[in-house]
Amino acid sequence: MKIVNQNERASLRRRVDQGTEDQRKSVQSIIEDVKNDGDQAVLRYTEQFDRVSLPDYKVTTEEFEQAYDSLDGEFVTILEEAAANIRAFHEKQLSTSWFDTSPDGTILGQKITPIDAVGVYVPGGTAAYPSSVFMNVIPAQVAGVERIAMVTPPGSDGSVPAGVLIAAHILGIQDVYKVGGAQAIAALAYGTETVPAVDKITGPGNVYVALAKREVFGDVDIDMIAGPSEIAILADETARANEVAADLLSQAEHDARSSSVLVTTSRELAEGVQLEVQEQLKELPRQDIARQSVEDYGMILLCETWDEAVDTINEIAPEHLEVITEDPFQHLAKIKHAGAIFLGPYSSEPVGDYFAGPNHVLPTNGTARFSSPLNVDDFVKKSSVISYSQQALQQNGDKIARFARLEGLEAHARAVETRKERWK
Amino acid sequence: MKIVNQNERASLRRRVDQGTEDQRKSVQSIIEDVKNDGDQAVLRYTEQFDRVSLPDYKVTTEEFEQAYDSLDGEFVTILEEAAANIRAFHEKQLSTSWFDTSPDGTILGQKITPIDAVGVYVPGGTAAYPSSVFMNVIPAQVAGVERIAMVTPPGSDGSVPAGVLIAAHILGIQDVYKVGGAQAIAALAYGTETVPAVDKITGPGNVYVALAKREVFGDVDIDMIAGPSEIAILADETARANEVAADLLSQAEHDARSSSVLVTTSRELAEGVQLEVQEQLKELPRQDIARQSVEDYGMILLCETWDEAVDTINEIAPEHLEVITEDPFQHLAKIKHAGAIFLGPYSSEPVGDYFAGPNHVLPTNGTARFSSPLNVDDFVKKSSVISYSQQALQQNGDKIARFARLEGLEAHARAVETRKERWK
Repeated sequence: MKIVNQNERASLRRRVDQGTEDQRKSVQSIIEDVKNDGDQAVLRYTEQFDRVSLPDYKVTTEEFEQAYDSLDGEFVTILEEAAANIRAFHEKQLSTSWFDTSPDGTILGQKITPIDAVGVYVPGGTAAYPSSVFMNVIPAQVAGVERIAMVTPPGSDGSVPAGVLIAAHILGIQDVYKVGGAQAIAALAYGTETVPAVDKITGPGNVYVALAKREVFGDVDIDMIAGPSEIAILADETARANEVAADLLSQAEHDARSSSVLVTTSRELAEGVQLEVQEQLKELPRQDIARQSVEDYGMILLCETWDEAVDTINEIAPEHLEVITEDPFQHLAKIKHAGAIFLGPYSSEPVGDYFAGPNHVLPTNGTARFSSPLNVDDFVKKSSVISYSQQALQQNGDKIARFARLEGLEAHARAVETRKERWK
Repeated sequence: MKIVNQNERASLRRRVDQGTEDQRKSVQSIIEDVKNDGDQAVLRYTEQFDRVSLPDYKVTTEEFEQAYDSLDGEFVTILEEAAANIRAFHEKQLSTSWFDTSPDGTILGQKITPIDAVGVYVPGGTAAYPSSVFMNVIPAQVAGVERIAMVTPPGSDGSVPAGVLIAAHILGIQDVYKVGGAQAIAALAYGTETVPAVDKITGPGNVYVALAKREVFGDVDIDMIAGPSEIAILADETARANEVAADLLSQAEHDARSSSVLVTTSRELAEGVQLEVQEQLKELPRQDIARQSVEDYGMILLCETWDEAVDTINEIAPEHLEVITEDPFQHLAKIKHAGAIFLGPYSSEPVGDYFAGPNHVLPTNGTARFSSPLNVDDFVKKSSVISYSQQALQQNGDKIARFARLEGLEAHARAVETRKERWK
């Protein structure tokens, strides 16, 4: 891991895979096929891409039961505790409808309504994470979404990972479909004989899933297209090098394109972390991925002043930020852009991935400048409510009509003026 | 305007202009040029598309002053009152950061931060609306956005409509740039010598603007791509036909693709409105547009039962909904999807376009199923805050490590376990 002086660093590279023109065309034709042929197209593409021929693809009660047989009960208890923590945190995000009344009789307000139906994409293979199920489904449930469907690609034996099924079952999700890729996104967006259409699709996936989400966006809503994971650690000389290194590597092991950055004013810490990363790498099962990630996208940035260090963090706008300093809370006001902020030496990033409660679906690639962790507000929408009284219209009608005419909209003006008959 | 039985109607057509492949390519090359050549490219495209050669394109103090000379003071007062109402409504939308502490010392929270810089696109020509300036800028200001830039295409004489400049000036916006189209979106997204880059772009525009917003999305945030305006009116026999007709026409005059729908159980009202629409159309200056809109996308839906009428509204998920019935508030609970809900006979839709306070930037084309009026939350973002205590990590560390290992992420488990040294 390179140590670089802050003023000598090049700007950080973007790592979003936008897909090729061929990939985009292929995704478009898969979506068209699923729109036209429904289940038949879904099963055809499942056979082609997942190499398994399925008679149907809704997960059965028996499959849920088998999943429980394959995991021990103690682990199920951990999952349940995590789910309860995540639910408790997200319940605090609930917004409420409000109204405000004026003396002239006007009532203005904002009504909050949950989205009717949501689809959650859960990746397959090595990235089949029960925690993904929790982080996508629980905010939707807390928001009051009535119908939640889950899709996940089947393995070549036609099965779905037990952890994913148990996570779904813990949350009471019954509609799980064994379908992945662009065909899964199309099925959720437009519906098939088996899968009823939804209004919003969330959850991470490969480049085909991301491209398909972009295609269906507008017909349904989608969450952000996530890039590879990233962490920045803002640390002073009180941080321990072995802990900082371990946290950097916990991101690096996700993906060869993951990014791990330490920002510090302490040369001693910088050098200690550099050594520790080399040492700890040797012991990791996913060391090939982690080493590649650290070499390509890892960096130790040495800053002259603490203000410069904080500015650097805001410039990076990291997905995960750890602040490991003597009094981490004192820096909170200055941190403007970060998906999740972990304060102090005990708040190792994995604490937030699984267990503490906040969401692990976070803005990547600097998008924390303008976007937020997945949250309950992503699963509700607002409606403005306007109830004008006769008195209010009598007082303001002429002004409104005049405003409309300035904008050249005569029918707008007349719509207001036609009410005058009521008080003549 | 056709009267159609609810059970005989075809589903409503979508009216989003996705652009052609040629338009998309042209937009991509404009964006590339502005990225590479900055101001030079901006001024070249302005000459090409707006047919005016400008030496520079930032609006000067003199231009603001000239705008005031061209409009009378009474109208400025109306604009100021509208701005105050809009500000008062949006101030009620402000979310606050929150924290929650546990007995074990854990602190979890959510920090709200405004987006740093926002760009607002204001269309030119006949659609140059001061109200658009208010509705896009005020929520950003209430959110605490520090820097707001505005772009709007110049006329062939190099000027910008006075109403737009005055609206900007009332809000204290000084950075107004005379540039439109895809080149304006590119300048905002990537910056030029004259225009500093922003983090989010909002505001409506033609198909080139919409395509450019789609292209830069991800590098910056954007608001929804809006379709043509639409209104649905849910009315019973207590509604007056002339008022309902006037309100339908106030949407129809916007655009030949605007949609105006009456949903009612009263045949008498249906027939009365049909007649009134014909009569009132004759008197409208924009009658060609309004007539086309009513013929192509207007409809009077006659329902058998009131429940059917309400279901129809939820299926349409209209941008604007008027409820004109004996006791309109009693229907509020049943209305699930609508951008803005206008209750009672005095809440004519134009009241909300200009003056009452709620935003007039609303979800169109059925997207009220999953999206909201433009609001203060669109200009802030959240950061999760996690401060775990030693006690919390001691109690939960092993569970977290186990969860990580189930997901195959060993470095995650070790990051947590390395802290154990601290309490050995």
